[in-house]
Amino acid sequence: MATVPLVEYEDAPAEVRAVYDDIMATRQVTWVNNFWKALANDPASLKRTWESLKQVMAPGALDPLTKEMLYLAVSVANGCDYCITSHTAAARKAGMTPAMYAELMAVVGMASETNALVSGYRVEVDEALAKAAKG
Amino acid sequence: MATVPLVEYEDAPAEVRAVYDDIMATRQVTWVNNFWKALANDPASLKRTWESLKQVMAPGALDPLTKEMLYLAVSVANGCDYCITSHTAAARKAGMTPAMYAELMAVVGMASETNALVSGYRVEVDEALAKAAKG
Amino acid sequence: MATVPLVEYEDAPAEVRAVYDDIMATRQVTWVNNFWKALANDPASLKRTWESLKQVMAPGALDPLTKEMLYLAVSVANGCDYCITSHTAAARKAGMTPAMYAELMAVVGMASETNALVSGYRVEVDEALAKAAKG
Amino acid sequence: MATVPLVEYEDAPAEVRAVYDDIMATRQVTWVNNFWKALANDPASLKRTWESLKQVMAPGALDPLTKEMLYLAVSVANGCDYCITSHTAAARKAGMTPAMYAELMAVVGMASETNALVSGYRVEVDEALAKAAKG
Amino acid sequence: MATVPLVEYEDAPAEVRAVYDDIMATRQVTWVNNFWKALANDPASLKRTWESLKQVMAPGALDPLTKEMLYLAVSVANGCDYCITSHTAAARKAGMTPAMYAELMAVVGMASETNALVSGYRVEVDEALAKAAKG
Amino acid sequence: MATVPLVEYEDAPAEVRAVYDDIMATRQVTWVNNFWKALANDPASLKRTWESLKQVMAPGALDPLTKEMLYLAVSVANGCDYCITSHTAAARKAGMTPAMYAELMAVVGMASETNALVSGYRVEVDEALAKAAKG
Repeated sequence: MATVPLVEYEDAPAEVRAVYDDIMATRQVTWVNNFWKALANDPASLKRTWESLKQVMAPGALDPLTKEMLYLAVSVANGCDYCITSHTAAARKAGMTPAMYAELMAVVGMASETNALVSGYRVEVDEALAKAAKG
Repeated sequence: MATVPLVEYEDAPAEVRAVYDDIMATRQVTWVNNFWKALANDPASLKRTWESLKQVMAPGALDPLTKEMLYLAVSVANGCDYCITSHTAAARKAGMTPAMYAELMAVVGMASETNALVSGYRVEVDEALAKAAKG
Repeated sequence: MATVPLVEYEDAPAEVRAVYDDIMATRQVTWVNNFWKALANDPASLKRTWESLKQVMAPGALDPLTKEMLYLAVSVANGCDYCITSHTAAARKAGMTPAMYAELMAVVGMASETNALVSGYRVEVDEALAKAAKG
Repeated sequence: MATVPLVEYEDAPAEVRAVYDDIMATRQVTWVNNFWKALANDPASLKRTWESLKQVMAPGALDPLTKEMLYLAVSVANGCDYCITSHTAAARKAGMTPAMYAELMAVVGMASETNALVSGYRVEVDEALAKAAKG
Repeated sequence: MATVPLVEYEDAPAEVRAVYDDIMATRQVTWVNNFWKALANDPASLKRTWESLKQVMAPGALDPLTKEMLYLAVSVANGCDYCITSHTAAARKAGMTPAMYAELMAVVGMASETNALVSGYRVEVDEALAKAAKG
Repeated sequence: MATVPLVEYEDAPAEVRAVYDDIMATRQVTWVNNFWKALANDPASLKRTWESLKQVMAPGALDPLTKEMLYLAVSVANGCDYCITSHTAAARKAGMTPAMYAELMAVVGMASETNALVSGYRVEVDEALAKAAKG
């Protein structure tokens, strides 16, 4: 049970409806998912978060599928169930095949393992890596 | 300061050298980074971890650049400094441009924000999303 | 399903009842929530945890509402569903209005985003900030 | 060492300078901290992040000190060193006394402990708490 | 609802059945838990993960009960519900008594609290501790 | 640089000295590490935290070495550098051999990997596991 009521389209004030309309138009869907209905209790947060998300997820140097897969990987690392579900759905819609999904998950798992090993042994950064990271 | 000594090539037993040789050959580099030198205190862990990593990061349904970017995104989410450094370096080497890097980081930041909002409001999974996530 | 049985008041030994009584008296409620009933399987842990919590959450330099909001913010960052629920309830009881709640969540979300960006770019601490942090 | 160069004011393009100017004016300081100089490699991210932060941290239903303390609590929970430093500095500047700081940290510590206990015992949410959380 | 179908024994290809058989033989059980059935959608990941787990969890310098308790402690720290459940079950089977379980959880809770306090105050590592950590 | 001054023995008030004395006596050492010197800025937190830690880490159903290894495992999972260092040192002092340490780290790494895989695939808890977890 959410900690706030979900704001349905028919009960929403105009400024919320405007965001809902933009979400549906941008994503070419006919409904709005619960995350936005929860955020809509604070129309300013709804608008700001949607505008940021729309800008960040728009195609650019990275294609939409890569962006969705990155979003999913972070959501798994953070253990956010809702986010994992919604971005698995979005990544599949954007073209993630079962084989790509399995490889994504294997990378996330492997990264989690080596992250722990590196932190645990307190491995110092190689100077050459630090330089290469800076580009 | 690491919590274990780093095992240098010249001091390494044969089974460790064999892994070091394979790391350098696979990555086409002439040196081994500190992570492996720390793991080498336990040759079985070194071998197992490297074999898994090599298998997971090999080109497959996802290309090497995408895999490195996913690895980096998880490392940022986990806050592992060494891992962030080494996989930023690896992603740049695999072709990540500054524009791609900026977009990757924007996605990671945005995902972290919405992960927190979703968890905090305890938003329930939409049935339609759960179905779509399952493919 | 919890991994331990919940210890109900009527089945509890005297030392557990004493803690339950103190919880109800301190909070001016007539029931004990599941967290304490789970901890009560180990009366020493129950007593130690409750005594610490009571001391930490007592009014002091920070008022009870601020303390509850801080508790909630940490629980969101840690993704603990039960804790989010119980401390959202407690913060509302202590006077958190819907507007305050929306702002709290916006801060938590924003902090999560910039935490990720800062860690990911491995930004070095400004000397002036380090000094100012020390007071 | 950061993974991107820091963009100094004198080398910054006009759109970046405009943000830097707004940061300094809003905060009534004469310098810009490293976080923004790192973000400035991508002017669009710089502008979006700053605009969001400015909106979220503006006085509203919560006062600036409470917002800074919440930001700090989340940064501690996420283990972000830079963020802890900068928001400890900001909270002190906004009026956080040593006694308030000590209580804030005690709450963060206590929340971390009970978050772990609750998750570990998989305690089920009390129906009454779920209702109360919803307001 | 999982994001992938669970692969049942009767529908599994030979390479998956071979892993399932080894899991059941190694653990001396007559069924396979859902984690492996989810992983089995990618037989290579199933095999690699199982082989690693079997090697890591085999008796060695640490006995099986200690290993299961460490696994459980990490799962609690990461807030993974499924993992907490399965490794609490495994630790009990390996001999974890209620008293040991209560002490394990108290240590995990205490560590979570002091981890937060140390990170929040940005305590510097004592030179003597760094030396002692290196052995 | 810590965000608070470290309180040295010679500058400490009597109530802080009493805790320092107890720490040194309990651990049979002649110095106090920085964590306590940071906490000592708030004598009440110092006393409460030390009393809890002393109680939790005392020998009981689990021996001191097992408790130190659990503490270390959680500290690695939480990525707390200071805590990793101090509890690696403490575990070595309590008898953790290099072979035990390597196995501990392998378990932590493996748990981190499977935690991520389980969360990412949103695997549902097997009914039989839930029952077995409850004991």
